[in-house]
Amino acid sequence: MRVEVVRLGHRPERDKRMTTHVCLTARAFGADRVYVDTADNELEERMARVTEQFGGEFEVRTGVSPRGLIKSSRATVVHLTMYGENVAAWDEARWGELRSKPCILVVVGSTKVPREYYEMADVNVAVGNQPHSEVAALAVFLDRLTEGEVLRNDMGGRMTVVPQERGKMVIDNDDVEDD
Amino acid sequence: MRVEVVRLGHRPERDKRMTTHVCLTARAFGADRVYVDTADNELEERMARVTEQFGGEFEVRTGVSPRGLIKSSRATVVHLTMYGENVAAWDEARWGELRSKPCILVVVGSTKVPREYYEMADVNVAVGNQPHSEVAALAVFLDRLTEGEVLRNDMGGRMTVVPQERGKMVIDNDDVEDD
Repeated sequence: MRVEVVRLGHRPERDKRMTTHVCLTARAFGADRVYVDTADNELEERMARVTEQFGGEFEVRTGVSPRGLIKSSRATVVHLTMYGENVAAWDEARWGELRSKPCILVVVGSTKVPREYYEMADVNVAVGNQPHSEVAALAVFLDRLTEGEVLRNDMGGRMTVVPQERGKMVIDNDDVEDD
Repeated sequence: MRVEVVRLGHRPERDKRMTTHVCLTARAFGADRVYVDTADNELEERMARVTEQFGGEFEVRTGVSPRGLIKSSRATVVHLTMYGENVAAWDEARWGELRSKPCILVVVGSTKVPREYYEMADVNVAVGNQPHSEVAALAVFLDRLTEGEVLRNDMGGRMTVVPQERGKMVIDNDDVEDD
């Protein structure tokens, strides 16, 4: 199952950190690519550096028309919104149906999302019907979609964090090879 | 089980949106209170309005010394960090042990977290050992801790979102009573 994310309403100045967190979260929870509507080379480069360091095949493409992308996509389009069907009410069959799809395109907004996205989506999904955060919604949705398996994966990066009870341990695999 | 969150390193200007997302996420995933280190009345008021509208007993207290709070707390202190033990490796017994505690204090940083917090915490926990977002980490940690049950709850607010396949439906219960 391939997972891609579309980020709507990105304003490079104002949303730098939020959109970076959307991209980092997408990557950490197993998405393959994030599309961002507004062109932002700095964001693409920042995320390319993370992937170069920590591994995986993840990429960010900015300046992509979300309407065109969604309309031409054969993926199953999942729009995350607090107004949608609550995932808490989904049973295993519902999740299983989604997991059987070859490609899922997850749409996340920033501020108000135009009505047409509710219409274009195959499904409008709420990670709970309370106001919270597109970063939180994306993380929990992907965690449940992948049944948490992706958090176990070593992404094969140059840098590997070794889990510690206290403190920090990061192995730089290039250094190891040089020794 | 009472759940409280401590947000470290809040700079009101720079971190307005990120800390708001931390607070909204804490509330939506069942936390009772968020403590923020730097005083920020606007943040307290913004979150009080959300709680007034959407329900629950949630509150935000700012200008609270996190060191003092953690040292004097009898809660189990869980510091979320990408360098900690990976929750993906936790079995049900480990979660059950944590769920049996009367109070859990979840610590989330913004930028670099001083070493002393790694020492003060009862447990340093990674929601995966990849770089991502404190908002994402908090959401997934609380979702797993509460086994997703909190997302089912109606918080009894004045405003209630009614899940929809398409579009938005919000009931203002004050209006209903007026009719």
